[in-house]
Amino acid sequence: MQQNVVVQHIERAAQHIIDGLAKLGVATIHEAQGRRGLLAEHLKPIQQDVSVAGSAITISGAAGDNWMMHVAIEQCQAGDILVFAPTSPSNHGFFGDLLATSAQARGVVGLIIDGGVRDTRILRQMNFPVWSKHVFAQGTIKETLGSVNIPLVCADALVNPGDIIIADDDGVVVVRREEAEAVLNEALAREAREEEKRVRLANGELGLDIYNMRPRLEEKGLRYV
Amino acid sequence: MQQNVVVQHIERAAQHIIDGLAKLGVATIHEAQGRRGLLAEHLKPIQQDVSVAGSAITISGAAGDNWMMHVAIEQCQAGDILVFAPTSPSNHGFFGDLLATSAQARGVVGLIIDGGVRDTRILRQMNFPVWSKHVFAQGTIKETLGSVNIPLVCADALVNPGDIIIADDDGVVVVRREEAEAVLNEALAREAREEEKRVRLANGELGLDIYNMRPRLEEKGLRYV
Amino acid sequence: MQQNVVVQHIERAAQHIIDGLAKLGVATIHEAQGRRGLLAEHLKPIQQDVSVAGSAITISGAAGDNWMMHVAIEQCQAGDILVFAPTSPSNHGFFGDLLATSAQARGVVGLIIDGGVRDTRILRQMNFPVWSKHVFAQGTIKETLGSVNIPLVCADALVNPGDIIIADDDGVVVVRREEAEAVLNEALAREAREEEKRVRLANGELGLDIYNMRPRLEEKGLRYV
Amino acid sequence: MQQNVVVQHIERAAQHIIDGLAKLGVATIHEAQGRRGLLAEHLKPIQQDVSVAGSAITISGAAGDNWMMHVAIEQCQAGDILVFAPTSPSNHGFFGDLLATSAQARGVVGLIIDGGVRDTRILRQMNFPVWSKHVFAQGTIKETLGSVNIPLVCADALVNPGDIIIADDDGVVVVRREEAEAVLNEALAREAREEEKRVRLANGELGLDIYNMRPRLEEKGLRYV
Amino acid sequence: MQQNVVVQHIERAAQHIIDGLAKLGVATIHEAQGRRGLLAEHLKPIQQDVSVAGSAITISGAAGDNWMMHVAIEQCQAGDILVFAPTSPSNHGFFGDLLATSAQARGVVGLIIDGGVRDTRILRQMNFPVWSKHVFAQGTIKETLGSVNIPLVCADALVNPGDIIIADDDGVVVVRREEAEAVLNEALAREAREEEKRVRLANGELGLDIYNMRPRLEEKGLRYV
Amino acid sequence: MQQNVVVQHIERAAQHIIDGLAKLGVATIHEAQGRRGLLAEHLKPIQQDVSVAGSAITISGAAGDNWMMHVAIEQCQAGDILVFAPTSPSNHGFFGDLLATSAQARGVVGLIIDGGVRDTRILRQMNFPVWSKHVFAQGTIKETLGSVNIPLVCADALVNPGDIIIADDDGVVVVRREEAEAVLNEALAREAREEEKRVRLANGELGLDIYNMRPRLEEKGLRYV
Repeated sequence: MQQNVVVQHIERAAQHIIDGLAKLGVATIHEAQGRRGLLAEHLKPIQQDVSVAGSAITISGAAGDNWMMHVAIEQCQAGDILVFAPTSPSNHGFFGDLLATSAQARGVVGLIIDGGVRDTRILRQMNFPVWSKHVFAQGTIKETLGSVNIPLVCADALVNPGDIIIADDDGVVVVRREEAEAVLNEALAREAREEEKRVRLANGELGLDIYNMRPRLEEKGLRYV
Repeated sequence: MQQNVVVQHIERAAQHIIDGLAKLGVATIHEAQGRRGLLAEHLKPIQQDVSVAGSAITISGAAGDNWMMHVAIEQCQAGDILVFAPTSPSNHGFFGDLLATSAQARGVVGLIIDGGVRDTRILRQMNFPVWSKHVFAQGTIKETLGSVNIPLVCADALVNPGDIIIADDDGVVVVRREEAEAVLNEALAREAREEEKRVRLANGELGLDIYNMRPRLEEKGLRYV
Repeated sequence: MQQNVVVQHIERAAQHIIDGLAKLGVATIHEAQGRRGLLAEHLKPIQQDVSVAGSAITISGAAGDNWMMHVAIEQCQAGDILVFAPTSPSNHGFFGDLLATSAQARGVVGLIIDGGVRDTRILRQMNFPVWSKHVFAQGTIKETLGSVNIPLVCADALVNPGDIIIADDDGVVVVRREEAEAVLNEALAREAREEEKRVRLANGELGLDIYNMRPRLEEKGLRYV
Repeated sequence: MQQNVVVQHIERAAQHIIDGLAKLGVATIHEAQGRRGLLAEHLKPIQQDVSVAGSAITISGAAGDNWMMHVAIEQCQAGDILVFAPTSPSNHGFFGDLLATSAQARGVVGLIIDGGVRDTRILRQMNFPVWSKHVFAQGTIKETLGSVNIPLVCADALVNPGDIIIADDDGVVVVRREEAEAVLNEALAREAREEEKRVRLANGELGLDIYNMRPRLEEKGLRYV
Repeated sequence: MQQNVVVQHIERAAQHIIDGLAKLGVATIHEAQGRRGLLAEHLKPIQQDVSVAGSAITISGAAGDNWMMHVAIEQCQAGDILVFAPTSPSNHGFFGDLLATSAQARGVVGLIIDGGVRDTRILRQMNFPVWSKHVFAQGTIKETLGSVNIPLVCADALVNPGDIIIADDDGVVVVRREEAEAVLNEALAREAREEEKRVRLANGELGLDIYNMRPRLEEKGLRYV
Repeated sequence: MQQNVVVQHIERAAQHIIDGLAKLGVATIHEAQGRRGLLAEHLKPIQQDVSVAGSAITISGAAGDNWMMHVAIEQCQAGDILVFAPTSPSNHGFFGDLLATSAQARGVVGLIIDGGVRDTRILRQMNFPVWSKHVFAQGTIKETLGSVNIPLVCADALVNPGDIIIADDDGVVVVRREEAEAVLNEALAREAREEEKRVRLANGELGLDIYNMRPRLEEKGLRYV
């Protein structure tokens, strides 16, 4: 449990892997890595029909204190995603249009925050996507140190700096950097399999037949009356 | 409390009654049947400004297990609505774009689920409306039997197979199949009465006068100061 | 604790002050008055990207009883906002399209309700903005007296009749009528300062430098590794 | 959906069956009837280490209105349990020491309420057990009719008048009257089986061996490292 | 909205009035003042079967910051109750055994806190009663000023310094200092009336008869079947 | 993210360190390690006035599936604490009196579970302490593999196998095994400092003076009026 440190150099996944993951949905990626890696359901998008992927810049800060946000932005590169977890629950608006302007100027592609956000209308206008636990105007202070780019727990999931974050309307998933290529390949394969099934289902075939479920249902004792 | 059965033949209301109810709002229908029949408030639409009505195909399944969804779709006809209640609370995404494709191929017009749904962006693109307790990517298993077309409790309300479900932005209401025609007629009458009042209110007349509230307010002791 | 009274004459702020506040966001106004005055986060808009400001007409009513809404509308002038707080928690739909028609006919510009609202689709079509704790079709009765234009607690904040309410996507804030001009001036000054910073941040300057944070971070012991 | 009726004659299970169920825990009975029949987890006891069983007298009343409680008590016999469900969520204290005095005078053995209760200290002193969603002093009115002894949904479960209710520290379970004897027998058998296992487990034998889990764990692929 | 002030001299009610209210329950007092004055249900006692009454010393502090607790204790007299409301939601443990020791040394008789408390086991051993929203060990900082003895909103209710707070297992109620004597008298009268009814109910008389409810039930249309 | 593995050999802290931590409260230990390590507030004890410390045996299992509990108990030694986290939220009763009997036979001293527990009355009688998110009788299945003794996130905190868990009425805290001795020493020192202050506070000295707060309050601008 390191405290009050800023790790300046982190590893990131190759951009083509991140780009590949960005085209797949959170549900598909989550399935592809064995149904692991989802952040808690309480993270909700402030916008609709947007998905994004990027490398995690992790930020640990005190409740109601957004000082470390400023520290973190300096550590960002194009394609990064800010991942903020307060050290105790807090619904303050830790992030608004000024910080988004600064983050966007450095190429940051989104924010995941297990706390609150504000200026949401402007953030949507700026096309700066956010997944947050709260939307609330309550202001923050700048009094207590935290850390940047340490492993942390955000919305019930462990996130390491440089892990890949993918977020869409269904939630947020984290992929370990070192597993990213394998997960991408498995997800692509899964999607291909699903596409074939989608066509058959659209034509009226039943999942009961496509997945050959009837024998096992009968064996378990399902009765048709 | 039947278990592990699929009831294959259920009664449905006449389509013109369902169509009639579809044109009325949930609030109006709920009032028309004596303020009964609302499902719990925690069911929220994943889309905006959409309303739908259909015959309930009821599905009881285990937490985190969507096996019975596949079983249920085979029982559906055009105009049906899936009504899923897990036997204990679960935020898993029981339903996604593949199941929606299959359901839509059979003419199913929507899903009411006291659990989670995923692939919500695609579901909106498909115009497949959903009212759910959760939106979450978490996957499900197919291990435990349940039942289809038995009476069940969904979001605090008893729903029988073949009951009519009406859903819009204000929530979800169930109308007993055998009461549907009477409720439709009462709701239409109510709406006609409301329309006349709407015109008077829009012209600046006060509800205090239209509903003749002043004498009773005075009698109860309201003081103007 | 007055009970069952309707105060007919209240003071309102000058319209140009209300108009000035309407152009500023809730976050800015909240900061400008010392981070005070926010109503609780559970008040959520039923529409997106809308902001409004007006003079509070306060309404205290019983749970599940919207009788006082009708009484209150008679007390409204153009530019007023209805602020309703039930005397105990209630998710009933206290307000729908008929009341909105009546309110809009008198020039009311919105509703803040620490309870439920219904007919939300029509309310959006009418451009009648609402911030509520619940969206639910459940109907109300008209049996118990309440009060209009008394000081009350709504969503954790004290609201006096004639106070200015400003609401947008980030929440709802109350400004005391007698402090409104000072708050407006401070908010305008704050916004001007922010605008200058926004340009610098957009050009890639860091908050760390603009706000001169580095010395204090170092003094507090932040370590870069 | 009957409304505003009091059903005066209901069937009850034999007292020796109710007494038998009273000696078993909620968890055991719930298992014995196929993991069905639990009321929602939000019902919590106001006392500790108390269990009770009785025949359900069902009461449907409006939010914040306890009029039907008085009507229901007249319908009670010794050994009955009051089961109250408001028609919409309400945290009012629907029941206090006066109603408990009256109920106890008629031999009522407890209250299950998907709403609020008050005077909890006195209720504990009276040994009148309660499972409720809320504890709150908020008073109620007596304005709206409801029904007594109709089938209703309480805390997500269907309860018919005369069904057996069993409640302890783990929650509340309903047993259909006509299934009560079979459930009692199955529960007794289950408890006997458990008792034998308890002795073996207390002696240090492992569940892995008693239940012969090792082969299936291996087959599914569990790896010991 | 005063900020950062400590009001050193406040009016308190006569001790015999406070003592009188202490002997009555929260439910009775709440009824006696017209069902007004309850703080929100989420305030829960950390102990059982304890009731207390005292004069409110109000404290407004920042989320996660308990500095003002120390400031407030200096303002306390024997018989006072601390009433703490954070300016935004916070589950930190603002108060523990050291502060309780200090408060008790000055004769403070309890704490009402719309936030968190810790060291609850020791507080129970000390017989220092607390009603709180949270129980949590999370520590606080001492960085931000607040105020003592200003009117504030605590758990949805307005509390003025010197108002009387009464708390028991059913919740917390505030009585305005200037209304305290009248409320006490009304509550005593109410209790006397209830006592007489309690005897009749215990003897098996029904509320239906004692309160003469039958004619009105019949008039409203209740049907016995 | 290992899956479906049981790690059989883990490091544990020395027993005298665990014993030392057991004598200190969760609040003190949490402070001593820099206000880190608390598990989320929603973990609540099923008993009162009990504290415990032990080495974590971590268990990751599917929602509603307690198979891995049986696997884990085989890995336990005297002094261990079971730490169970479901891979998605679940209120099922994963653990009851039979598992407790088995665990206690191996010397396990408690259970921390971010899910549900049942048979709570018997668990209290057995003096087997539990901190859980839910108390609910709902039964579980044994279908899906999980893991034992892998690092996992439980109630928002990362717990490694062999970390020390301390739990009391204020919550649950985790101490890294390798930091345990240092944390113990710091906590003892902290407690000694607190003891001295407790005496002074009990004698009526004020925290304002003991901690020398007055100059900084004045500097920040607190006004006494």
